[in-house]
Amino acid sequence: MALQTIFLFSLILFASKAAAQLDFCVADLKSPATPTGYPCKNPATVTVDDFAFSSTLAVAGNTSNVFKAAVATAVVTQLPGLNGLGTAMGRVDIAVGGVIPMHTHPSGTELLLVLEGTINAGFISSANNVYSKILKKGDVFVNPRGLLHFAINAGQEPAVGIVSFSSHLPGLQPTDYALFGNNLPTQVVKATTFLDEAQIKKLKAAFGGTN
Amino acid sequence: MALQTIFLFSLILFASKAAAQLDFCVADLKSPATPTGYPCKNPATVTVDDFAFSSTLAVAGNTSNVFKAAVATAVVTQLPGLNGLGTAMGRVDIAVGGVIPMHTHPSGTELLLVLEGTINAGFISSANNVYSKILKKGDVFVNPRGLLHFAINAGQEPAVGIVSFSSHLPGLQPTDYALFGNNLPTQVVKATTFLDEAQIKKLKAAFGGTN
Amino acid sequence: MALQTIFLFSLILFASKAAAQLDFCVADLKSPATPTGYPCKNPATVTVDDFAFSSTLAVAGNTSNVFKAAVATAVVTQLPGLNGLGTAMGRVDIAVGGVIPMHTHPSGTELLLVLEGTINAGFISSANNVYSKILKKGDVFVNPRGLLHFAINAGQEPAVGIVSFSSHLPGLQPTDYALFGNNLPTQVVKATTFLDEAQIKKLKAAFGGTN
Amino acid sequence: MALQTIFLFSLILFASKAAAQLDFCVADLKSPATPTGYPCKNPATVTVDDFAFSSTLAVAGNTSNVFKAAVATAVVTQLPGLNGLGTAMGRVDIAVGGVIPMHTHPSGTELLLVLEGTINAGFISSANNVYSKILKKGDVFVNPRGLLHFAINAGQEPAVGIVSFSSHLPGLQPTDYALFGNNLPTQVVKATTFLDEAQIKKLKAAFGGTN
Amino acid sequence: MALQTIFLFSLILFASKAAAQLDFCVADLKSPATPTGYPCKNPATVTVDDFAFSSTLAVAGNTSNVFKAAVATAVVTQLPGLNGLGTAMGRVDIAVGGVIPMHTHPSGTELLLVLEGTINAGFISSANNVYSKILKKGDVFVNPRGLLHFAINAGQEPAVGIVSFSSHLPGLQPTDYALFGNNLPTQVVKATTFLDEAQIKKLKAAFGGTN
Amino acid sequence: MALQTIFLFSLILFASKAAAQLDFCVADLKSPATPTGYPCKNPATVTVDDFAFSSTLAVAGNTSNVFKAAVATAVVTQLPGLNGLGTAMGRVDIAVGGVIPMHTHPSGTELLLVLEGTINAGFISSANNVYSKILKKGDVFVNPRGLLHFAINAGQEPAVGIVSFSSHLPGLQPTDYALFGNNLPTQVVKATTFLDEAQIKKLKAAFGGTN
Repeated sequence: MALQTIFLFSLILFASKAAAQLDFCVADLKSPATPTGYPCKNPATVTVDDFAFSSTLAVAGNTSNVFKAAVATAVVTQLPGLNGLGTAMGRVDIAVGGVIPMHTHPSGTELLLVLEGTINAGFISSANNVYSKILKKGDVFVNPRGLLHFAINAGQEPAVGIVSFSSHLPGLQPTDYALFGNNLPTQVVKATTFLDEAQIKKLKAAFGGTN
Repeated sequence: MALQTIFLFSLILFASKAAAQLDFCVADLKSPATPTGYPCKNPATVTVDDFAFSSTLAVAGNTSNVFKAAVATAVVTQLPGLNGLGTAMGRVDIAVGGVIPMHTHPSGTELLLVLEGTINAGFISSANNVYSKILKKGDVFVNPRGLLHFAINAGQEPAVGIVSFSSHLPGLQPTDYALFGNNLPTQVVKATTFLDEAQIKKLKAAFGGTN
Repeated sequence: MALQTIFLFSLILFASKAAAQLDFCVADLKSPATPTGYPCKNPATVTVDDFAFSSTLAVAGNTSNVFKAAVATAVVTQLPGLNGLGTAMGRVDIAVGGVIPMHTHPSGTELLLVLEGTINAGFISSANNVYSKILKKGDVFVNPRGLLHFAINAGQEPAVGIVSFSSHLPGLQPTDYALFGNNLPTQVVKATTFLDEAQIKKLKAAFGGTN
Repeated sequence: MALQTIFLFSLILFASKAAAQLDFCVADLKSPATPTGYPCKNPATVTVDDFAFSSTLAVAGNTSNVFKAAVATAVVTQLPGLNGLGTAMGRVDIAVGGVIPMHTHPSGTELLLVLEGTINAGFISSANNVYSKILKKGDVFVNPRGLLHFAINAGQEPAVGIVSFSSHLPGLQPTDYALFGNNLPTQVVKATTFLDEAQIKKLKAAFGGTN
Repeated sequence: MALQTIFLFSLILFASKAAAQLDFCVADLKSPATPTGYPCKNPATVTVDDFAFSSTLAVAGNTSNVFKAAVATAVVTQLPGLNGLGTAMGRVDIAVGGVIPMHTHPSGTELLLVLEGTINAGFISSANNVYSKILKKGDVFVNPRGLLHFAINAGQEPAVGIVSFSSHLPGLQPTDYALFGNNLPTQVVKATTFLDEAQIKKLKAAFGGTN
Repeated sequence: MALQTIFLFSLILFASKAAAQLDFCVADLKSPATPTGYPCKNPATVTVDDFAFSSTLAVAGNTSNVFKAAVATAVVTQLPGLNGLGTAMGRVDIAVGGVIPMHTHPSGTELLLVLEGTINAGFISSANNVYSKILKKGDVFVNPRGLLHFAINAGQEPAVGIVSFSSHLPGLQPTDYALFGNNLPTQVVKATTFLDEAQIKKLKAAFGGTN
């Protein structure tokens, strides 16, 4: 085989590709995003570290809070190599008696794997059906995009879940924070949820809401 | 010009196209759907009536209910010609003192046009910002996909809105129905929302929930 | 409940989200667009006004022109909050005897709602079938993406339609303007449409075409 | 190396994959389509012939017609292995003095390669700009999705083009056929195009239209 | 509040939604798939068990094979609720000295989380750059869609990884199986890879290939 | 007809469109790309030359190399008008005894048209089936996205193929270059492919690889 010939051929082949944006688009997180993700770093400056991130997804989170739960993520804003590639991961730790409160991911489906413990997971559909189940170690569970869902430690030991998402940045809208943790006026919450005013004020105090 | 020739040519051209699924896919609503919509009716049996629907979007809805509001839609399940084409419409009537309660559309963005009256519209983002505004006749307002939003009649006359969606079937998840209008256990609602048990039971009674 | 604790937790949660591009991408209309829309404004500077626009969609347009018709729109270039969210709206007014001439929207399906009057609407498919119908108040009608369609006032009073689109910027290509309203040479129009030269020159004069 | 072990491992690996719908979805053209293509043939019955098709794209078409042109295609209805994969091909032959008349592809962009001869190709944009050029052998030219475009033999020898599409079935709407080759009433054509009635009737006769 | 009224209202609201395909499309795995996934089960028969699956992703796989590695998955064919929702998960166990051989996922990006141990992970781009790194517990690593990648246990203890995918069924094409584990003729492998014939025959024997 | 009126109307209509990014997005190749393509040139500066490119796809390539083959392309980096429009083209020349070696296109399906000669084309699926066929002049053949495929001149004369892609930049990963043409260590290639070390070193020398 004419070794020399192949080698030269390859130099030409890849020189022409070096400048093009092929295969991936590592996020330049400092530039303005677009509807489908961040603009790409210059391919010539991309290194392996753009595709790697030392996450906290392999260690227990700190559940010393009111939810007795912790959430960690590996999303595009932490791992620019994910940009536009349609997936991300997360970890939930739920201590005994703990809970991941009712929330949605506006931009992505979540797939939950129970790594340790027992979790009561569930979601509610547009047709107002409740799909809820006690999950054991090894069970996986789908929370379809945009639907309200929750997770409760249903056992006597800490529970751990690893989640995958269908988006590089799925978003997170916890219902309590949306209703009680901002400046949405109490009268608007009351009118649009039929909750009692006292209840709203109590939770606004807890979640840091005003108005 | 050789008229006859063009004519014959056209017979051949369109005979070959008649069987193919081109341009549109009228929903066969009786067959099982797919992730992107319903299977298509046989193109040979499609008529103009598959693309038309006598809706109630041009007349006032009945607002004699507890919300003092009414919603009407023109979506794929009513108008099979919309199948897979990425849009749908709706109408909201909100009487004085009425409200479209807090809800999300899990599968679509909503664009609201105020046709009559004054509406206080708003949505809450994943970053927990409230975007809310008093809209007058002629104002349009964007409620991005999957986010909690609401509309309140903020004036002294009935308000009317026409909405467009970015999906042929955007879904609808009113928060109150999801939390209080099904068999989601009171203890689960309590644990995942921090609402008081009495409050939950009161609203479960109102919205028909059990457990 | 440890109110203080939840509040602090929420401060941390949302601080980390503030910088990310979540849920929406408000168009920075002054920067170069991308294949999927405009780049996003800095999320920190987004306000409710980016999602609202005082349109003319709730009032009658001026039909004192040769078409006896008027068109108004609410698209991304007017309403930057729509960017990348896949919908837009419009309004058509058609006086008695008026017409929306034959045209396509290259990038989007149109759903037409007849708000007032009577409209003869129709489109022609790739298989060369005509789907045409007299629409009354309240009727909705689908014009699938990219296909030639038209609307004619078919009654004795002004007609009004509200339209939704499946794109934030659906485009508009009126056949007459494309053929007769630019510098496409008469000989090219003649060769590619088989129209008579005199006919072409007459319409070029009307639509401002040259060559 | 433990050859036997690898072999057994592979039997297990691929047995579990045989039933799943992986990589491709060969069209079952006899079943109803969906918005994204035809349902898939049973993977177990797929053969290489589902991915191959003996087309006429390598031989000159018969240009003995009024357009002095011929079109041949390789699309999903001829080549079921293309289903859902987002591309297709075609060939145009244009004799001296011949033309591919003004048309759109409602569902796809076209890329034209001039294999032989000289072609005057052009398209018209939504902003009503004409983009037109005399193409020589080897030139490629983009006709963006949904826009009116045409091709004219601009030389003294037969011209040949090979085209690629961004869809497995791009559709084809020739303006003349849409306006004059079906039962769209003369009065509707007149009202929506401002063409003279005599001109319309003349072309309806040529293109086989009625009404 | 008029409790009864809300309750009746909700019965009507959700009765009309029960038949529609909203939010999700649980795979009917026995029916032919489409380019975007399997057809949906009748929504009326969907239960929580369609969204849950007792996987082996939380326990060590059996690495007593020539690769000293094991792979487990949770994909749509095992978990029908994932259908069309754009994500899936997997687990890799790599014993000391073990390897996940060079392969691609033709339909999806992979995000790898190292749960235990040390992994040398890497991929090769179209521009022929190698992006490779020694990953420790907690590190995540992106393997962009369609690119060759591998993982090697680079430590002195078993390594465990959890992976997420951007597809409900990402596919898997191990290079060795593709080249040596089927009936692709030795002469074709030789001509298209420049491998020596003896080398090919040796690996064909190991991977069960013929011809 | 009030010619003047139409003309003025059209001036207004198109003035408002001139600034918007409609129909296409000509690549500004000097600016950073995004996940869906390059940012757009200012529409006001777009000319017909942005949509045309004098390619080498109509002439025989130079096959005086070790593969006895040549590849030419028309992709977005050569033809900026293709940006985001989902197709591209290429040409392969394969001399007698020549071969297009085993490779994948990570981002696109390829449709091959045999213009001259005889080609043995084939691909291998995730389920490890080989789909291979001797193609004659005029045959078209589908190589689905991301799968290993090849082409061999199977006749006694030069073979020519024209290919279309489902992407404006499909990428190209030749297996040999990925394994032997870069700095991927010999020990990593050995561990992940089971090839003999001597074989690897021999091919690394030929393809210019190091380590």
